[in-house]
Amino acid sequence: MNVLIVFAHPEPKSLSASLREVAIHELEAAGHTVRVSDLYAMRWKSEVDRADFPSLTPDERLIAVAASKHAFDSDTLTDDVKAEIEKLLWADTLVLQFPLWWFAMPAILKGWVDRVFAYGFAYGVGEHSDKRWGDRYGEGTLAGKRAMLIVAAGGWEEHYSPRGINGPIDDLLFPINHGILYYPGYDVLPPFVTYSTDRLNETRFEAAAESLRDRMRSIETTRPISYRRQNGGDYHIPTMQLRTGLGAPKASGLALHIKDAAASS
Amino acid sequence: MNVLIVFAHPEPKSLSASLREVAIHELEAAGHTVRVSDLYAMRWKSEVDRADFPSLTPDERLIAVAASKHAFDSDTLTDDVKAEIEKLLWADTLVLQFPLWWFAMPAILKGWVDRVFAYGFAYGVGEHSDKRWGDRYGEGTLAGKRAMLIVAAGGWEEHYSPRGINGPIDDLLFPINHGILYYPGYDVLPPFVTYSTDRLNETRFEAAAESLRDRMRSIETTRPISYRRQNGGDYHIPTMQLRTGLGAPKASGLALHIKDAAASS
Repeated sequence: MNVLIVFAHPEPKSLSASLREVAIHELEAAGHTVRVSDLYAMRWKSEVDRADFPSLTPDERLIAVAASKHAFDSDTLTDDVKAEIEKLLWADTLVLQFPLWWFAMPAILKGWVDRVFAYGFAYGVGEHSDKRWGDRYGEGTLAGKRAMLIVAAGGWEEHYSPRGINGPIDDLLFPINHGILYYPGYDVLPPFVTYSTDRLNETRFEAAAESLRDRMRSIETTRPISYRRQNGGDYHIPTMQLRTGLGAPKASGLALHIKDAAASS
Repeated sequence: MNVLIVFAHPEPKSLSASLREVAIHELEAAGHTVRVSDLYAMRWKSEVDRADFPSLTPDERLIAVAASKHAFDSDTLTDDVKAEIEKLLWADTLVLQFPLWWFAMPAILKGWVDRVFAYGFAYGVGEHSDKRWGDRYGEGTLAGKRAMLIVAAGGWEEHYSPRGINGPIDDLLFPINHGILYYPGYDVLPPFVTYSTDRLNETRFEAAAESLRDRMRSIETTRPISYRRQNGGDYHIPTMQLRTGLGAPKASGLALHIKDAAASS
């Protein structure tokens, strides 16, 4: 299997970098081929701006969606973006690895998503009719592939628990897992999250590494999060609201979109 | 009142820029003083990296939390970050204005948060004991000030409704409203969200502008989202889990943290 790891941490000697090496080693030992996009090492450009769309004339207004569509259709995306798209098409599994900063991904990784997930590639795909609302949420260019997050959180695990003050980790990661990964078609595996990373001693690191090895060994067989497919009949089209009667009574706003969610998580 | 608008859109002729001008005009007409951090115009640096911490020696490992703490304590944050901190201390109200890209803020704005919200300023504030877990979530450096989001979303409003496929907008914005704004102390006002922005004609723009004017006229009096204060007795310390019996039975994982939330939203 081909695995792409998109890595976003500025320090080569960080915990995240150590865990990345653990993951790569285990994946390669199992016979998989691994490529890494190390965004800091690549000096990845984070901002969507006019430089991304060289075919825009100087007085032309930049409308991000339209410019992205035109650049993808006319094959004028910048070379750095094209290279990432090529890697995404090559990979059977995508891993995004990052420290959780302010309950979200670091800017450089958000900038990778903002720039690489072009219109016509990651969104704006498929037909719109009374039966379908495009190919998204379980369908799309990247359907049939797997994706998962490897996240390092500074805070306590309890603070991210179902009643923890930060909010449940699955809800905080929903905009990424559902909105960024499931949207263009990926089957999304449960995330691998390390907590209290500022206080991770040798013993706890080894335990985290062993859990990560387990996850890497089962990466081809782990059951994905059972998000509901957009065009599978669960949603009204075109309002895309979940049909009455679907979703457990206690399911939260976000957990409604998981088929087997029994309660708010 | 002093208002800081942090603005993140690459196009000066965008819908977001037009709405920004509407907001500024209305605020100034009411006698408020407005400053704008236009991140693209400022060529804001998005990535947290070694350049942010000039006092790090070349062979020293970059640990983001420790480096941020040291830089804040020793007054060696970079000048661009110091200028933003000065503006945040000046402002009675902070407005973050951005287009919703992939269900989150654009990278350049995330990079503003990642870099400006330093340890000792926006987190790592206050005493930790068996009665308090630092000054955060309703307490902290920015307590007593107000904050709100002005967001432009390309998708349909129905898709962001309580049962909409994207997830409820309030849940998607929770990591920002609660995790970024309430965390360092802000009272967070309900967001102002414009939907279907790709198809916004003159009539709909004028309606959106008028709603925004209303919100700007009431910015001093609008009731904030009633997030629960961390140290107000609702949470166990130090696990910071919401006490049994609190939170409406139907409240979702995220809505649990709002005092008057009656149901999943």
